[in-house]
Amino acid sequence: MPETITLYTAKVCPYAHRVELALEEAGAPYNAYQIDLQNKPQWYAPKVNPASKVPAVAYGGPATSPESPAPESTKIAESLVLLEFVADLYPNSHLLPKDPVLRAKARFFIDAVGTKLNPKFFAFVMRGEAGGAEGLLQGIEEIQKLLPEEGFAVGKDYTIADASVTPFLARMEVSLKHDFGAFDAGEGPKVYETLQSDPKFGRFRKYLSDCKARPSFQKTFDEAYLLETYKKRYGELRAQKKKND
Amino acid sequence: MPETITLYTAKVCPYAHRVELALEEAGAPYNAYQIDLQNKPQWYAPKVNPASKVPAVAYGGPATSPESPAPESTKIAESLVLLEFVADLYPNSHLLPKDPVLRAKARFFIDAVGTKLNPKFFAFVMRGEAGGAEGLLQGIEEIQKLLPEEGFAVGKDYTIADASVTPFLARMEVSLKHDFGAFDAGEGPKVYETLQSDPKFGRFRKYLSDCKARPSFQKTFDEAYLLETYKKRYGELRAQKKKND
Repeated sequence: MPETITLYTAKVCPYAHRVELALEEAGAPYNAYQIDLQNKPQWYAPKVNPASKVPAVAYGGPATSPESPAPESTKIAESLVLLEFVADLYPNSHLLPKDPVLRAKARFFIDAVGTKLNPKFFAFVMRGEAGGAEGLLQGIEEIQKLLPEEGFAVGKDYTIADASVTPFLARMEVSLKHDFGAFDAGEGPKVYETLQSDPKFGRFRKYLSDCKARPSFQKTFDEAYLLETYKKRYGELRAQKKKND
Repeated sequence: MPETITLYTAKVCPYAHRVELALEEAGAPYNAYQIDLQNKPQWYAPKVNPASKVPAVAYGGPATSPESPAPESTKIAESLVLLEFVADLYPNSHLLPKDPVLRAKARFFIDAVGTKLNPKFFAFVMRGEAGGAEGLLQGIEEIQKLLPEEGFAVGKDYTIADASVTPFLARMEVSLKHDFGAFDAGEGPKVYETLQSDPKFGRFRKYLSDCKARPSFQKTFDEAYLLETYKKRYGELRAQKKKND
């Protein structure tokens, strides 16, 4: 029986969202504590995560409030470490298959998300780099290529492979659709339209829709909050850009 | 009972070496096939790894020669995916502890090797960047900080955490000691001397020495071959640099 889990998270953060999805999918009891990333509490780095990032977990130890986690609890950071941790705590959940080959496929998929998709996501959406739109579409194709004909990344079950990519795809969709990004005004909806209508992205569309239909996603994704945050962040960025032009 | 493993590897490659160490530590039977990275066989990308890198594994399927792996065998790439794969194939080896918390520690260590040590190793040894010596020493301190007082990365057993770092540390030592790197002539032995004598690196020295004492390392590390390769690679680089000055 796993011990108490306190998850330090932030609605805006796709890395933290990965772990929320895994915990929900495992049916794990946990306390989620929101960290304001713009104004982190002073106790967070010394008491929870020296790197001062989310996600982090305080695992086990005596019951305390999240603001003063027990020194006896184990503190664990890094989203991919935590995905594996949740799968290890709940070996009978569907978070990782039992078969070593399928487990390897799940981890290869996770690696591809980190090396082939996410750098393109950051380049286009968060930095507005030249050629970013084409790069992002290529990154999505790379991920799409790894998907089986139907179901999730390694079969019918939603695994940590899917939890690793869902938060990024969902945030990307919000950014593109509503044109909130570091890209030039109007660029987001153009890419969104390509992803919505180009037959070559059919498998991707079905996959993202399947991921978003999960109760785990419904429960943990706050689109209105993200929209508000992106509007502020990228609105200011565009105003600044215009001023500098 | 695991099926046949063919490992595509290259003596020079630290990533491939990780997997050899894990296989040796697990006592796994496997066939190692050397890929000449300067002159890769034409069949390698289409038949084994589309990314055309080592390490890769062909797992299972009917017996064939490594040059024409059976289409029925599963091809798996990426060193960290393969470390986990070997640990999954041999769950009763000591490659990963059973305790989820210790498994998380092993994976956190592996993450630190990839994000805090290796970028510094590449910057100094392979690219000769300014400030690279200090950066590398800082990277080593980051790893040293994660080590328990004695033993290996997460305790008395040698795990995939140790297999993830040993190949890099061993290659770093050869480069520094013999002054073969993209750094300026003479810089390597200076850093080597610091690592050998500065009391602050005592724990690191013991750790590296423990890793190198493993039979798995003895069997898979070809120092003479590396020396020859580095001499050629960095000798040419220095001659070129001198010409350009």
